[in-house]
Amino acid sequence: MSVSAFVYTEDVLARFMRIRRQTLALCAGLSGEDLQVQSMPDASPGKWHLAHTTWFFEQFVLGHDPAYRSPNPEWHYLFNSYYESVGPMHARPQRGLLSRPPLDEIRDYRARIDEAIGEHLARGVDAALTARIELGLQHEQQHQELLLTDIKHALWCNPLKPAYRQGPAAGESRTSSMRFLPGRQGPVDIGHEGDGFAYDNETPRHTTWLSAHALANRLVTNDEYLAFVRDGGYQEAGLWLSDGWARVQCEGWQRPLYWQEDLASEFTLAGVRALDPHAPVCHISYFEADAFSRWAGARLPTEAEWEDAATRLPAHGNFQESQHFHPCAVPVGDGLLQMYGDAWEWTASPYVSYPGFKPLPGALGEYNGKFMNGQWVLRGGSCATPRDHIRASYRNFFPPHARWQFAGIRLGQDR
Amino acid sequence: MSVSAFVYTEDVLARFMRIRRQTLALCAGLSGEDLQVQSMPDASPGKWHLAHTTWFFEQFVLGHDPAYRSPNPEWHYLFNSYYESVGPMHARPQRGLLSRPPLDEIRDYRARIDEAIGEHLARGVDAALTARIELGLQHEQQHQELLLTDIKHALWCNPLKPAYRQGPAAGESRTSSMRFLPGRQGPVDIGHEGDGFAYDNETPRHTTWLSAHALANRLVTNDEYLAFVRDGGYQEAGLWLSDGWARVQCEGWQRPLYWQEDLASEFTLAGVRALDPHAPVCHISYFEADAFSRWAGARLPTEAEWEDAATRLPAHGNFQESQHFHPCAVPVGDGLLQMYGDAWEWTASPYVSYPGFKPLPGALGEYNGKFMNGQWVLRGGSCATPRDHIRASYRNFFPPHARWQFAGIRLGQDR
Amino acid sequence: MSVSAFVYTEDVLARFMRIRRQTLALCAGLSGEDLQVQSMPDASPGKWHLAHTTWFFEQFVLGHDPAYRSPNPEWHYLFNSYYESVGPMHARPQRGLLSRPPLDEIRDYRARIDEAIGEHLARGVDAALTARIELGLQHEQQHQELLLTDIKHALWCNPLKPAYRQGPAAGESRTSSMRFLPGRQGPVDIGHEGDGFAYDNETPRHTTWLSAHALANRLVTNDEYLAFVRDGGYQEAGLWLSDGWARVQCEGWQRPLYWQEDLASEFTLAGVRALDPHAPVCHISYFEADAFSRWAGARLPTEAEWEDAATRLPAHGNFQESQHFHPCAVPVGDGLLQMYGDAWEWTASPYVSYPGFKPLPGALGEYNGKFMNGQWVLRGGSCATPRDHIRASYRNFFPPHARWQFAGIRLGQDR
Amino acid sequence: MSVSAFVYTEDVLARFMRIRRQTLALCAGLSGEDLQVQSMPDASPGKWHLAHTTWFFEQFVLGHDPAYRSPNPEWHYLFNSYYESVGPMHARPQRGLLSRPPLDEIRDYRARIDEAIGEHLARGVDAALTARIELGLQHEQQHQELLLTDIKHALWCNPLKPAYRQGPAAGESRTSSMRFLPGRQGPVDIGHEGDGFAYDNETPRHTTWLSAHALANRLVTNDEYLAFVRDGGYQEAGLWLSDGWARVQCEGWQRPLYWQEDLASEFTLAGVRALDPHAPVCHISYFEADAFSRWAGARLPTEAEWEDAATRLPAHGNFQESQHFHPCAVPVGDGLLQMYGDAWEWTASPYVSYPGFKPLPGALGEYNGKFMNGQWVLRGGSCATPRDHIRASYRNFFPPHARWQFAGIRLGQDR
Repeated sequence: MSVSAFVYTEDVLARFMRIRRQTLALCAGLSGEDLQVQSMPDASPGKWHLAHTTWFFEQFVLGHDPAYRSPNPEWHYLFNSYYESVGPMHARPQRGLLSRPPLDEIRDYRARIDEAIGEHLARGVDAALTARIELGLQHEQQHQELLLTDIKHALWCNPLKPAYRQGPAAGESRTSSMRFLPGRQGPVDIGHEGDGFAYDNETPRHTTWLSAHALANRLVTNDEYLAFVRDGGYQEAGLWLSDGWARVQCEGWQRPLYWQEDLASEFTLAGVRALDPHAPVCHISYFEADAFSRWAGARLPTEAEWEDAATRLPAHGNFQESQHFHPCAVPVGDGLLQMYGDAWEWTASPYVSYPGFKPLPGALGEYNGKFMNGQWVLRGGSCATPRDHIRASYRNFFPPHARWQFAGIRLGQDR
Repeated sequence: MSVSAFVYTEDVLARFMRIRRQTLALCAGLSGEDLQVQSMPDASPGKWHLAHTTWFFEQFVLGHDPAYRSPNPEWHYLFNSYYESVGPMHARPQRGLLSRPPLDEIRDYRARIDEAIGEHLARGVDAALTARIELGLQHEQQHQELLLTDIKHALWCNPLKPAYRQGPAAGESRTSSMRFLPGRQGPVDIGHEGDGFAYDNETPRHTTWLSAHALANRLVTNDEYLAFVRDGGYQEAGLWLSDGWARVQCEGWQRPLYWQEDLASEFTLAGVRALDPHAPVCHISYFEADAFSRWAGARLPTEAEWEDAATRLPAHGNFQESQHFHPCAVPVGDGLLQMYGDAWEWTASPYVSYPGFKPLPGALGEYNGKFMNGQWVLRGGSCATPRDHIRASYRNFFPPHARWQFAGIRLGQDR
Repeated sequence: MSVSAFVYTEDVLARFMRIRRQTLALCAGLSGEDLQVQSMPDASPGKWHLAHTTWFFEQFVLGHDPAYRSPNPEWHYLFNSYYESVGPMHARPQRGLLSRPPLDEIRDYRARIDEAIGEHLARGVDAALTARIELGLQHEQQHQELLLTDIKHALWCNPLKPAYRQGPAAGESRTSSMRFLPGRQGPVDIGHEGDGFAYDNETPRHTTWLSAHALANRLVTNDEYLAFVRDGGYQEAGLWLSDGWARVQCEGWQRPLYWQEDLASEFTLAGVRALDPHAPVCHISYFEADAFSRWAGARLPTEAEWEDAATRLPAHGNFQESQHFHPCAVPVGDGLLQMYGDAWEWTASPYVSYPGFKPLPGALGEYNGKFMNGQWVLRGGSCATPRDHIRASYRNFFPPHARWQFAGIRLGQDR
Repeated sequence: MSVSAFVYTEDVLARFMRIRRQTLALCAGLSGEDLQVQSMPDASPGKWHLAHTTWFFEQFVLGHDPAYRSPNPEWHYLFNSYYESVGPMHARPQRGLLSRPPLDEIRDYRARIDEAIGEHLARGVDAALTARIELGLQHEQQHQELLLTDIKHALWCNPLKPAYRQGPAAGESRTSSMRFLPGRQGPVDIGHEGDGFAYDNETPRHTTWLSAHALANRLVTNDEYLAFVRDGGYQEAGLWLSDGWARVQCEGWQRPLYWQEDLASEFTLAGVRALDPHAPVCHISYFEADAFSRWAGARLPTEAEWEDAATRLPAHGNFQESQHFHPCAVPVGDGLLQMYGDAWEWTASPYVSYPGFKPLPGALGEYNGKFMNGQWVLRGGSCATPRDHIRASYRNFFPPHARWQFAGIRLGQDR
């Protein structure tokens, strides 16, 4: 987060209220029971997301004032996620056991903190406060996406395979043929630039060197991935990283996480639906993306290759706002398509710090920096990402076996 | 279950409705969220208990008619507990993930099945039907107790330590001094006798041989157990079975499950309360009961010793109906006290079949028989057991490390 | 161990030297590498058996004299098995890591302790010393059997399936047809009686009650067990205890431990050999013995039924001395056959204390008593048991999933 | 491995025999028992190293001729490490169970294969054969180092803490003060260049961009690391990567792997010795190296920074040949010291492929490429590395929690 003031096209409070309301809007149609469930340690209950994002504002905005007294200090322990420097926390795998406080109290908590933030803002806004509010909102938007991926996993664990919500009717399914478009070569600068918000891990902007390469014009489709499955991709050790092959065998991977055994349908947030052959394949781990690219005689792009190409494109795409909550077949077109939205794109870059990286001071320094081990960078956002949350320099990261995120594949090539 | 007709003091339908209503009554004050939580694989969500007990009547009473068609056949998989012979089932540790069907639909399900049972009974009652209904009701009562022990564990897992429900004010806390009363010696008959209901594992009635022995006149109290704790009982390997000592070390046992670290208070269904020195110690594993008895220079009674003594006593005590939901100090008195209610009593008898044991025919044969390995028998019921559920021949059983049940200690002695 | 003097037909020292030598004789043909291997936590390396049995004499015979000083006190930690009251010990699963002290030093250790015992005996023998020596020898004999079962498991883990040793040629394979012979009914006395050696867990002799029953005249054969396998015994949940069925599924059991996939050959201490149809089935867990007996419409005998029958038979059979190291087809004959030797017989009795049981005083009280949980009694000895180690009252015990012991099945019946 | 001919200063056969003999020389003083032990899944028994390196020559040199017939084809399964494309293999964690073939047969196997290689070479040498032999020798040298690290771990697991071998007397312990020397900035080329041997993962040589930085002149010493320990480094979450902190807590890390609890002595291959304050700290995981560097206000160097600096220095240092088998205090001097030998240096670079990387064709492509996930690069070799095995472009890699390698810390800085 650069603490310099960034330009808003929207009043701070209005933006705050809009994004906070959107989180609740995503919960419409989900019961207290639905929001209670934690289907695996990596996922959190919806109710916990509602509470934790609120705690974040309480802790890092209101609590920034040493005189602040929380009306429910005993919740601090419950809703701290991983900030060791502000105190101990409830064990992550046990978040689903917290039936108390009940959903209604969490909704009240949200309302009370929102009101307090409003009062705080009314007392005057400076750059530092704005920066902390904005960090909280970006954080809130990340949890909006997690709320969707986590409820998707929870509903999928239910043998009844219930739907979360029906989206708008999908358009005609078409796609362009895959082509490789050459990227720039030589020294380029990547990393966050300018006045807008960015996380600390996107900085500092710095020079890196691109070797000769090309990027595919669109994401890999279900049809293309199906060919890999049918060709025995999940049975051929030689296509996989050693750790990936161990996963395939020990967890019995045979297809993407949410595909049904018939290879013709998949579980979506709208329930089980026929697989759209032209839509991007999704819920792919890094291991699968890497194996597919090897099978296809290609490789994954590096994050620098991706960013250098994306930085010259507008951040348009199939985002949370489209309400599809699922990747869609790409409209036919020229140039690089689907760089933003639809599905996060695994890169060939491990998640490490940029040269000269400085984490945020204090507890917020735990936001990103301490996770720089064993994860891979994803780029471009997904159908669950809010439109104004993504940017060319944005670095998402997950471990290589993670499959429950909306993650897909864009191929790259050495030239 | 003996299929001979047993004498009811109550109309079958009235008894059915009363017991079914009581299960719901135990849920009063618990939210959908509370009833969703599964705090460990051994426990089940309250909602699941409500559904499973209903499924039991649907499967084994209504479904006994081959023409029966379930209105929700897809729930069969969800709410079958462990009856392999009627089909596959949802994995036990994942019961807490079933946010659907929602609690309201489960309540409807209960109402619909209750109505169907009512109609079924209205068409005529024979001994076989009565027996199946009665088995379902006994089963329901077992789950009433589990519902209480499971919600207790779930609430205890919550750092807020919320109460389930306030009970009536406890009386004055007094107790009799512990004395050992001699039991009978030589051949005795144990096992179910007569027309009343019994599980298959209580039969057949048979002869066994009692050696010279005595039983303590009451349960071990908190004060007595505290002396064991303070004497270093949890640090002295020589007091423990080898498997028990391994548990003590690997799980860090230092005191009974729900005691607080101060050794002066404990978590109860009414929240954290001061430890009553004269009330029976509770939530004790077999390993702890066995170690305590060794420390005390005594031993646990065998189930035959217990039954032979209990069979001549009325089944009075502190049961579910008292609404304490916690063991109480025993009124001063003569003879064997607290044989029924308050806390299940661990015996020195592994849970095995009686000579000539025949499990119930068909799927119901899975009810008891297949669990005859690695468990120990408990006798006498607890403060969570319905009064009319218990009898002298009743055999409860749990693995030796189980601590979340209302289980306590009565000492025995060789003579 | 009763401390009263028991009658020897053999001089104490001669007996000591004979049994100690026999342990070494069993190691002939095994290299230091073979004796180093620990194939699972339940098994120990041969070298460790050689050292631990020696430590036992050092600790409990020589060390009984407070003035005794061990020449290698640092080995105490390594070779104490589970006697918590004499100090901490090396973790059991890590016994295979002890390449030092080397085998040669362990052999020297044996020689030195043997010499010291000899000197001790030369200074005069009383009943207490005799009893301790005898306990050490019985202990040594138990480890002789374990040495064989453990090396068998280790060699079997090797894909080369090497043989331990060729036995004498097997005779003609025949067997009697299975018949059930009625046992006594009513009160009987079981448990150790008389002057001979017995472990504490065989005492006190006491009355128990036998219900009407019969015992099969011989052990279940490979052919009979094969019929169970071919009938789908390992696929039919209804035949199994719940815990057993969980094992079958999670460990993929399909046949006895050492049978080859062809169901026509098995791994023996003489290497892979054709399955003898008339030889007793072996390396069977309690779960399998129990499932087989249910499939056969029978049950396992109780230990009291077994002992009451065995006590009137001579302890003849196929023991360690025959050098077969494998069960053999039974000679045709009348009455109860194979009650001793060939294969340990699983009983339907959990391993618990007899009424009035008193463990040995001091650390030796840990020998048997602390294992009285979760195990089942086996009777009669096996082809790996020394002939003079077994008796009618002998109680062996293993957990229900143990398969690497020479354990088989005798059927029983209610009458 | 570039297949172009590289210049040898040594005859191929002489080099082959010398390196092969050295492997055996490292085993002098170790018994068959010592060489049998596998102390953890990551380590292998010494005997297995002896056999596997021999199998490597058999498989990839002799077996390259399709007419080759192995005299012991059943060993193929035992001694294949991880080459999926040449067939299935014995499970890695069970290598310690292979008491057969015995050590003597493995020595014979080595002699026979060495002889066959000699005959092969006598029939004529071309570049391709030379390249395969050389790969086998580099592989053999890697296993020489592993043999030392693995036997060190095995001996350390033994409570007796036996020594492997006494090294030469250490010189006077001194060290230079730590200074940071600036590195080059801007585009640089890294990766293997020229005719010498290199692994595929060191290629292709390519351009990368160095940002402004400096490197410490020597490795971090025991004294410096001790200050971190004493300052509470292992108790301060804020210093650690999240995954690292989880390890610290769950495995109870308090100090380097082989340091004794007194913080004054450590286990070495010469037994327990006083900690040399000026010698490099060793047996450090990436997590510890990273936490230390954060505590020190520095960071780890990237592999490109390291290589660019190292490529202008001669590869001199404390290697296997010095027979210390332990890092030594650095002689006082100017410039970058200890860049080679003593201890592998963790870098801030995850182990990934270079741009344009092509693995070796066929099964040898599994040598390096499939491990490019979750590991970090180490540079410079150690006291266990053969002198002629190391080079500036050499990339070693281990997972971040690995502590049993001779790995230490050189600090870097942003400038």
